[in-house]
Amino acid sequence: MTTELKTGGQYGYLRIATEEAFATAEQIDAILRLVAEGRADKGTVSLWGFYGTSPSERTTFIRERLLDLGELRVQAMDECGIDKAVLALTSPGVQSLFDLDEARGIAARANDRLKDACERYPTRFVGMTAVCPQDPEWSAQELRRGKEELGFAGVQINSHTQGHYLDEEQFDPILRACADMDIPLYIHPQGPPDGMIGGMVEAGLEGAVFGFAMETSYHALRLLTTGVFDRYPSLKLVLGHGCEGLPFWIDRFNYMFNAGVRSQRYPRLKPLRHSLHHYLRTNVWGTNSGLPSPASIKLLMEVMGEDRVCYAMDYPYQFVPDEVRLLDAMDISHEQKVKFFQTNAEKLFGI
Amino acid sequence: MTTELKTGGQYGYLRIATEEAFATAEQIDAILRLVAEGRADKGTVSLWGFYGTSPSERTTFIRERLLDLGELRVQAMDECGIDKAVLALTSPGVQSLFDLDEARGIAARANDRLKDACERYPTRFVGMTAVCPQDPEWSAQELRRGKEELGFAGVQINSHTQGHYLDEEQFDPILRACADMDIPLYIHPQGPPDGMIGGMVEAGLEGAVFGFAMETSYHALRLLTTGVFDRYPSLKLVLGHGCEGLPFWIDRFNYMFNAGVRSQRYPRLKPLRHSLHHYLRTNVWGTNSGLPSPASIKLLMEVMGEDRVCYAMDYPYQFVPDEVRLLDAMDISHEQKVKFFQTNAEKLFGI
Repeated sequence: MTTELKTGGQYGYLRIATEEAFATAEQIDAILRLVAEGRADKGTVSLWGFYGTSPSERTTFIRERLLDLGELRVQAMDECGIDKAVLALTSPGVQSLFDLDEARGIAARANDRLKDACERYPTRFVGMTAVCPQDPEWSAQELRRGKEELGFAGVQINSHTQGHYLDEEQFDPILRACADMDIPLYIHPQGPPDGMIGGMVEAGLEGAVFGFAMETSYHALRLLTTGVFDRYPSLKLVLGHGCEGLPFWIDRFNYMFNAGVRSQRYPRLKPLRHSLHHYLRTNVWGTNSGLPSPASIKLLMEVMGEDRVCYAMDYPYQFVPDEVRLLDAMDISHEQKVKFFQTNAEKLFGI
Repeated sequence: MTTELKTGGQYGYLRIATEEAFATAEQIDAILRLVAEGRADKGTVSLWGFYGTSPSERTTFIRERLLDLGELRVQAMDECGIDKAVLALTSPGVQSLFDLDEARGIAARANDRLKDACERYPTRFVGMTAVCPQDPEWSAQELRRGKEELGFAGVQINSHTQGHYLDEEQFDPILRACADMDIPLYIHPQGPPDGMIGGMVEAGLEGAVFGFAMETSYHALRLLTTGVFDRYPSLKLVLGHGCEGLPFWIDRFNYMFNAGVRSQRYPRLKPLRHSLHHYLRTNVWGTNSGLPSPASIKLLMEVMGEDRVCYAMDYPYQFVPDEVRLLDAMDISHEQKVKFFQTNAEKLFGI
């Protein structure tokens, strides 16, 4: 495919990429120090031991591109016809760090840096707040600062925080802040925690190839099945990578969840106000980051509704202009493409 | 929906259900003994601690129906318009057991019992061999007996065997027997092994609701990414539950697998002869057990090809006649329904 990709509404829609990553040097340094000290979990060791130090072409490219919030990135967007990028501090954010002062500082400074970049490129960049879920109260304050002072449009949390999940009680201030201030909560993957990673690293499958999806869909399903959306009916959850497969599985989730509840199989699982389908179609949005797959995108639209599915590229981890051409050519209606590439993201993030 | 469901080609196709479960009393007894002794893994404790002992309506029904290979089952098939059921010893088979004599004996006697049932109902029941992967050489012999003496059409292995996976070298006799004798290998789920189950039991998510799919898709991906189908190009792998999600994810699997191979990220992962798509479309079949979901079934057909997708019910764990009505009414062509309900299974299993 050789059509030149252009920004500015080439086919009657802008292209907004909603899960695009950046890093800061001090974030990578802190994670690599943890890895060197043998204190990082296996997923972080594998992820950043590789992306942080490998001399391969792929990782050298990704390191350079993650650290850039300037012309290199805008040029890459221009090459792919991406009008706007919704940017977030790359996985695992600061969630692997044990020193809370350090973790809060790195997150806050990443937010400041991202805000500067958004001011330099106000028509191209949109920010999501980085938080430090190890300190939920501080994170709630930073969410307020992100929304009110920095002009950010969401928050990205990189799945588990040292083996803990957002449905646990201690994280309630974060969920409450998202619901109260209408901040979309984007749960991005990281590797599974040590208690779930088994032999996946040895098998080469704990990362974006497989473990990420397992970890993040598990996280999302914990939220769906424990009444989080009964407590916070306005909470907006965003999941990448084809909504982490939830729409594919939703009938099975719902059938087996209800079978377990009716038989009182698990003390933790109680009846909910609605079916799991309801929460998927009311509280959840899906993007296709890393999954430029028409069949999967169409399934998302069919199961979730076409107003809940947004485009994403996953730059710089996945930077393939032909994927944009493939999605431009999907066999869906023009109106559906406008929603997918542009207006669903505008509504979701208020941009 | 109230249309009466009938066997015998009600709409121009027979309905063959390809992932239907039975148990033997000594199998359940042996597993429950292991649970009582505190020697079973967490997934088995949760699964059989529940199905084996709970007084709930659901589990009482399932226990009775699992143990029956007679009129109750045929009557249930008649009620749903199921012409033939492909039957296998229920999860985890004998794979949790430590005493190999006991495990082999239970598997062999289950095979004998299933053969008797198939002889009593030759037009209704088709058998799959139960094996004891803890003893791969014995399992290879039992596969031969199953194929040549008992007339069975496949083998069911219930995912991991005490934390080990079929791509590991010690299981090669099983894969070789399947390839040499053209025996479809149906990998059925069980709970993740202790090293991967994390907090899933406490979360109520380690079973059929979620953990099963995670475990089994991991197992299948291990086979796809380690050259098993380059070694055995004729090996047939069957996966239930929407092919355990593989077709939804295949583009991401393939992209990230190849990115890892090119960067030499993992010692274990080497270049393969083909893309992962090739193996999915050449060596893998998918059934919709537990996933009576038109959107997911259509995705399977689009990604794998319509000759590789078969119907299954998952009786007695999921016994909902309206699901048959829903699938009869899917918006696919009549020819596709004939393949889905009948002829794909006939070709795959040679029945």
